[in-house]
Amino acid sequence: MSESSNHPSARPIPVLEVFGPTIQGEGMAIGRKTMFVRTAGCDYRCSWCDSKFTWDGSAKDEIRMLSADEIVTELFSIGGDTFDHVTISGGNPLLLPQIALLTQRLHEKNIRIAVETQGSRWQDWLVRIDEVTLSPKPPSSGMETDFEALDDIVSRLREASGRRDLCIKIVIFDEDDLTYARGVHKRYPDIPFILQTGNPQVSHESDDHVASLLNRYEWLIGRLSEFADLKDARALPQLHTLVWGNKRGV
Amino acid sequence: MSESSNHPSARPIPVLEVFGPTIQGEGMAIGRKTMFVRTAGCDYRCSWCDSKFTWDGSAKDEIRMLSADEIVTELFSIGGDTFDHVTISGGNPLLLPQIALLTQRLHEKNIRIAVETQGSRWQDWLVRIDEVTLSPKPPSSGMETDFEALDDIVSRLREASGRRDLCIKIVIFDEDDLTYARGVHKRYPDIPFILQTGNPQVSHESDDHVASLLNRYEWLIGRLSEFADLKDARALPQLHTLVWGNKRGV
Repeated sequence: MSESSNHPSARPIPVLEVFGPTIQGEGMAIGRKTMFVRTAGCDYRCSWCDSKFTWDGSAKDEIRMLSADEIVTELFSIGGDTFDHVTISGGNPLLLPQIALLTQRLHEKNIRIAVETQGSRWQDWLVRIDEVTLSPKPPSSGMETDFEALDDIVSRLREASGRRDLCIKIVIFDEDDLTYARGVHKRYPDIPFILQTGNPQVSHESDDHVASLLNRYEWLIGRLSEFADLKDARALPQLHTLVWGNKRGV
Repeated sequence: MSESSNHPSARPIPVLEVFGPTIQGEGMAIGRKTMFVRTAGCDYRCSWCDSKFTWDGSAKDEIRMLSADEIVTELFSIGGDTFDHVTISGGNPLLLPQIALLTQRLHEKNIRIAVETQGSRWQDWLVRIDEVTLSPKPPSSGMETDFEALDDIVSRLREASGRRDLCIKIVIFDEDDLTYARGVHKRYPDIPFILQTGNPQVSHESDDHVASLLNRYEWLIGRLSEFADLKDARALPQLHTLVWGNKRGV
């Protein structure tokens, strides 16, 4: 490594989970074989967050400070030669400038990289990510979208050279969320757009969890069908939640 | 219409279903809002076909012979201005040269078109389809793949000008199907590749149909995870079957 150890890009990365191979259960790469790296820390506190342990302190003893090389070693130790795709999730990975070095190390191994973020913060390494999902949070989250920050991120990604997939994904619990989502799609009409079924049972699970999620998904499909301003959108459930509920590490 | 009525492209199209808008429940456009046109007739007789009524004679009284213009009129009558995507499914639409005119009429309306076929037959109009899914059938279907025909279709699509999305999707019921699928992926390594959970209950449905399909999907994810020669594949269920079972017209 040419970087000195106190250079931001050489700082260790706070990691809560490294797992896979499994499938990406949601969004534009739904079903795609991938490994996951979940970072700790978030600038948001969504009411229905399905990974609250990344920011509520409940898993703070599980956080490991790992170098980019240590993460790469762990990924290959777990996944062997069965994968070529890594999803960096959080929390909000965009809080961490030091992910730059991880992206570089993964690309050196010909690994494709996906990142999901709410679109509240920028890091220069985002332009090197192969699949960027911007997931601004609707009213039901309790968060407020900083559209200036989101505009800025979209502009920077558009201006950056290199080929990448970009999509916007919005979790939908209710009509207010739908109204919000339609506004976001109108703001960025050329970015592939996904509506995702909300999961209200993130801390407990009833016996009818799957049926309840499929009912919500059916409702979402019905609403999507009706809107002329959502012609080219997709509605998707979270497949991992249908298969595994809220279990971690799958 | 400049075509004379006995020109092949002006022949009426045997149609069994026109419905939507709903979502595409499977494959590369999974979740995408679309309308469906289902044509009658197939050169295959898959043991687990979920649309046997398109070829087994059970729905022969429902077949309507419609012109391209009549189909377009019906699509807009049902879907209004809420859609910009039409999926032509079957049966095997590639038995029908006269779909050429339908594709032309839909493109005149700025409608994006998806077609799914097993890849046993060619029609020149296939190069004008925006999203082509080739779905060769694995051993569990009881059919045998004509790889010369499939090679020919893939070559013609590769040589054709214009931008289109192309994928291969294979239904997986068992280990033999997986072995077959890996061979197909090896044969066409650069074509996006999807493994799809098989649905064994196409004529009846047990109470635990969803649970059983999710178990099959979990098994498929597990198998996908293990193979180094399936690094870049996707495993997907049929979302419409999870939501609606075998109900038609959704």
